Amino acid sequence: MNAEIVAVGTELLLGQITDTHSATMARILAECGIGCRHRQTVGDNLDRIVEVLRQALSRADVVVCIGGLGPTADDLTRDAIALALDDSLETVPEVEERLRRWFASRNYTWVESNARQAQKPTCAELIPNPNGTAPGLVARKNGKTLFALPGPRGEFDPMAYDAVKPILETLGGGVVIHSRVLRITGIGESAVEERIKHLMESENPTVAPYAQPSEVHLRLTARAVDLSSAEALLDPVEAAIRAELGSAVYGLNKTTLEEAVINLLIERGETVSTAESMTGGGLGSRLTMVCGASSAYLGGVVTYTAAAKASLLEGVTGALAEHGPVSAETAAAMSESVRSRLSSTYSVAITGNAGPTSDVGGKPVGLVYIAISSPAGTSIEECKFRGIREDIRARAEQTALRLLREKLL
Amino acid sequence: MNAEIVAVGTELLLGQITDTHSATMARILAECGIGCRHRQTVGDNLDRIVEVLRQALSRADVVVCIGGLGPTADDLTRDAIALALDDSLETVPEVEERLRRWFASRNYTWVESNARQAQKPTCAELIPNPNGTAPGLVARKNGKTLFALPGPRGEFDPMAYDAVKPILETLGGGVVIHSRVLRITGIGESAVEERIKHLMESENPTVAPYAQPSEVHLRLTARAVDLSSAEALLDPVEAAIRAELGSAVYGLNKTTLEEAVINLLIERGETVSTAESMTGGGLGSRLTMVCGASSAYLGGVVTYTAAAKASLLEGVTGALAEHGPVSAETAAAMSESVRSRLSSTYSVAITGNAGPTSDVGGKPVGLVYIAISSPAGTSIEECKFRGIREDIRARAEQTALRLLREKLL
Repeated sequence: MNAEIVAVGTELLLGQITDTHSATMARILAECGIGCRHRQTVGDNLDRIVEVLRQALSRADVVVCIGGLGPTADDLTRDAIALALDDSLETVPEVEERLRRWFASRNYTWVESNARQAQKPTCAELIPNPNGTAPGLVARKNGKTLFALPGPRGEFDPMAYDAVKPILETLGGGVVIHSRVLRITGIGESAVEERIKHLMESENPTVAPYAQPSEVHLRLTARAVDLSSAEALLDPVEAAIRAELGSAVYGLNKTTLEEAVINLLIERGETVSTAESMTGGGLGSRLTMVCGASSAYLGGVVTYTAAAKASLLEGVTGALAEHGPVSAETAAAMSESVRSRLSSTYSVAITGNAGPTSDVGGKPVGLVYIAISSPAGTSIEECKFRGIREDIRARAEQTALRLLREKLL
Repeated sequence: MNAEIVAVGTELLLGQITDTHSATMARILAECGIGCRHRQTVGDNLDRIVEVLRQALSRADVVVCIGGLGPTADDLTRDAIALALDDSLETVPEVEERLRRWFASRNYTWVESNARQAQKPTCAELIPNPNGTAPGLVARKNGKTLFALPGPRGEFDPMAYDAVKPILETLGGGVVIHSRVLRITGIGESAVEERIKHLMESENPTVAPYAQPSEVHLRLTARAVDLSSAEALLDPVEAAIRAELGSAVYGLNKTTLEEAVINLLIERGETVSTAESMTGGGLGSRLTMVCGASSAYLGGVVTYTAAAKASLLEGVTGALAEHGPVSAETAAAMSESVRSRLSSTYSVAITGNAGPTSDVGGKPVGLVYIAISSPAGTSIEECKFRGIREDIRARAEQTALRLLREKLL
């Protein structure tokens, strides 16, 4: 069973956007045990999309197209699929009706080209798109299965995981391939690999590490006759990895570090608050991405300027005046002040210099102080992060979450 | 003049890494006026790399291979290029000598496979690699030009810009392709297209819309004999689009909406603060991603719970008690309170229900109130957003930035 991914869009060929969807789809295919030998990228040109699809269909059992399903004249994937499959397009009246209602309910102007999104090749079924206007497609013909997914990320990701992956899992022909991902933080990729080397020699399940920003993910993949046999193969390997790596394994599959932290807090009936300077609210934003976060995360302050620190927090002016905004003392004062203000069990403060210039009191780019306060007192971590502004901010948030989790455990 | 990019590596096909090099190379090709019609990705398999290279050479004048030049057994790009060009490999003794010295000087063990990096097809020249061990390649045969660059980022980027781009610039035959992107918010993709349809018929420059989350980007691309002639072709089209769409065009090229807002504030010497409930700090995080944001963004509060609203903001308890957390009145009180607390010119407050459950005072998922306060008073927008939690939050942040920008204009 082999798959080929076809990404459609002139903006990809001009390098205006980076193709992250193809990597997402590649991971999903791997998790479903479907090999992927080729990926292609083609622009918004009907003849060339058709030619690429025909080639993909000639050598792969499964073809996944990404992008080009929108309403405009350069959205040509539907038309190309119909041509590549020697099929024609038909309009699905219920879908057109739903699109018209959607536009009307938002007082958006209906233009006729929107109706193109209600079209499909006659041999295809529509995949509902709860997050946008263009449905996806799945077409089965001559033993081949062809998918088409929309390009916007908020539409692509849910459709890929929630609708396409379950179909892919059924294509294996009596073999179920099932994966788990163990998520690890606080240990680097080569150290993880060194410690579980003996487990990586196994052929079923396979164990493969891959590095993510500030994390390592271990993918365990088992082949078996059914799901429960696959789970039974995975259980002892997961247990062995957890025994080796201990609490560095913070979550399973799509669990994020902020989810792990919020869940720990909810279990204990405890709460946290934040005081952010350099990250400008990014830590609060990550914590509140977790559904139900309001049971554990109370809120916080974003004190991006010295005036905001003085106005929103009590007792930081001394540390600020004496040690400057990027200092262990200011981090501690911020953390203690927000904890007392919001009466939370824990609090986290981040202050530092994310660059690009060394203009924060002369402190070097990448120097960050993270304070964690708890009923037992306040501990402070001095961190030196490398990278561009985005990287330094993201690493600071990730480290703050890791330190809070360690304090909780 | 047409190019094709071929990325080599099984880790790409497994989705373990995202291919950013192909986008970098695509931008370089566009800047050199060389069109790119296809990109391919292939794993570390000799037969398949050869097949992909032969296809690329059959339809493109320039082929750029990325990756697979290292010393290990799965680095097969050199071998594949020799086969695809019906050529053979030869060792360049000076390069092998240099490699041996490089290893000796670092006390690294020399293994014989390292000598593979001193090989090249006889028709090719080596491109020096000052940042690593594997040189690049440029081969010219049968009117085609084929490049090979190493995959590690610290080696790829300098070789692409410093060595390959100057060669590419000599291949364009005196044609420069130059693009601009106009960034638009507050109008949907099909409405944009409807209003500038007459401009989209132009062949030089071409005008193509593409949808981004809560934005539309219009790409204008001109072909001309030099950069200034290309700019001269783009200027009147940009002016016509701005005349048609007015202030909905908020930025050019890589300018983000938060950058446009921060820049407007800095120009006027004005400031803003935030009070975020549903977005948990996401708006502050976006504003502070802009370098130099501290001149305009003072800070704010994240009042994720009712207790935090009461403790961090004055004068919201009345609105909270009477109208609940998701209400126009609470949004207004939050905005006015943070503005007065931080003495900012403007302030923005966001409160709403991002889902997935209707648990915020029984208010429906997607209902969001955004308040903007200014010296002239407070205005409130009621929004109904669709999508998953991430989307609703992102749309709320984007709308808040748009409303603030409109207030500023």
